[in-house]
Amino acid sequence: MTRGRLVTALVHYPCVNKHGAVFTTSITNLDVHDIARSSRSYGVAAFYVVTPISAQQAMAKAIAAYWEGDGVKRNADRQNAMRLVRVVSSVKDVLDAEQALTGTAPLVIATSAKPQGAVPYDSLRMRLATTASSVLLFGTGHGMAPSIMDAADVVLAPLLGGADDGYNHLSVRSAAAIILDRLLG
Amino acid sequence: MTRGRLVTALVHYPCVNKHGAVFTTSITNLDVHDIARSSRSYGVAAFYVVTPISAQQAMAKAIAAYWEGDGVKRNADRQNAMRLVRVVSSVKDVLDAEQALTGTAPLVIATSAKPQGAVPYDSLRMRLATTASSVLLFGTGHGMAPSIMDAADVVLAPLLGGADDGYNHLSVRSAAAIILDRLLG
Repeated sequence: MTRGRLVTALVHYPCVNKHGAVFTTSITNLDVHDIARSSRSYGVAAFYVVTPISAQQAMAKAIAAYWEGDGVKRNADRQNAMRLVRVVSSVKDVLDAEQALTGTAPLVIATSAKPQGAVPYDSLRMRLATTASSVLLFGTGHGMAPSIMDAADVVLAPLLGGADDGYNHLSVRSAAAIILDRLLG
Repeated sequence: MTRGRLVTALVHYPCVNKHGAVFTTSITNLDVHDIARSSRSYGVAAFYVVTPISAQQAMAKAIAAYWEGDGVKRNADRQNAMRLVRVVSSVKDVLDAEQALTGTAPLVIATSAKPQGAVPYDSLRMRLATTASSVLLFGTGHGMAPSIMDAADVVLAPLLGGADDGYNHLSVRSAAAIILDRLLG
């Protein structure tokens, strides 16, 4: 499929907690690894890890840097994926960085496990084929805050696996993998 | 989609290491959680964790049991997924348990990131619609040993995400999620 530049971002702020209040989540080591590996496997150009907390930024950078040092001897494929990681403070930083690189405002695509969006995967897949620059946002905690969701150009429909009772509690690692496969696989 | 009983299994032995030697891998906590949650979301009937090491079996059982105790107060959805977990010693135990439950030998489906299989997802998806009982096996380490791969009824084609250079180093958590989505989503 011919397509433009697409990047992923894992958002740790602003997210909502189980009570709907806006908060900052902690970075999960395996989120960084898994989404970097999925992004690399599906030809994604960069994977942004978004957190405003400097100690958390340092941790994410240390995880990625490990694979440039001792880690590469152990697993060069892992290094290849972790090189996609960019650590930034905000979603705005992601959009600004992409606009600076491509010269065009990226299409902002939000995802949610809740019924906030209705855009089908097939239609976005077709749209991506003719879109020069796109940012695919994944939330943590109980999802991204309304300030992000409301500003997105596209909100994808939630993934529904077909469990009889509509159960859909995938990890963000799993959801990101499935969404990349549906859009780019 | 009308279909029979399908279960997942995560195999920690017999697997191969990077040199091709048969070995036993350790259980990864988030593998158990993520594949349980993906399995539950896609209507899978049970998720077997396969390891012959009794201390590892005890750990897997403790992870699942947490969600029957303190964990349920924190997250009932997680409990709902972790109830699928069955800890067993061998792949044979999985097949025997399924045969005892359904009265029929299950279709054994193996997966691999290596080009060991060529069965397309669409064709297996159609076959599952008329198959009474199936077991979907996921390997750890550098994949399942030949004794398992050679005995499988079906070996699925590797997932290829479309990276220009054919890079396909997904985590087993991500691969399992994508495969369930392709077969059942």
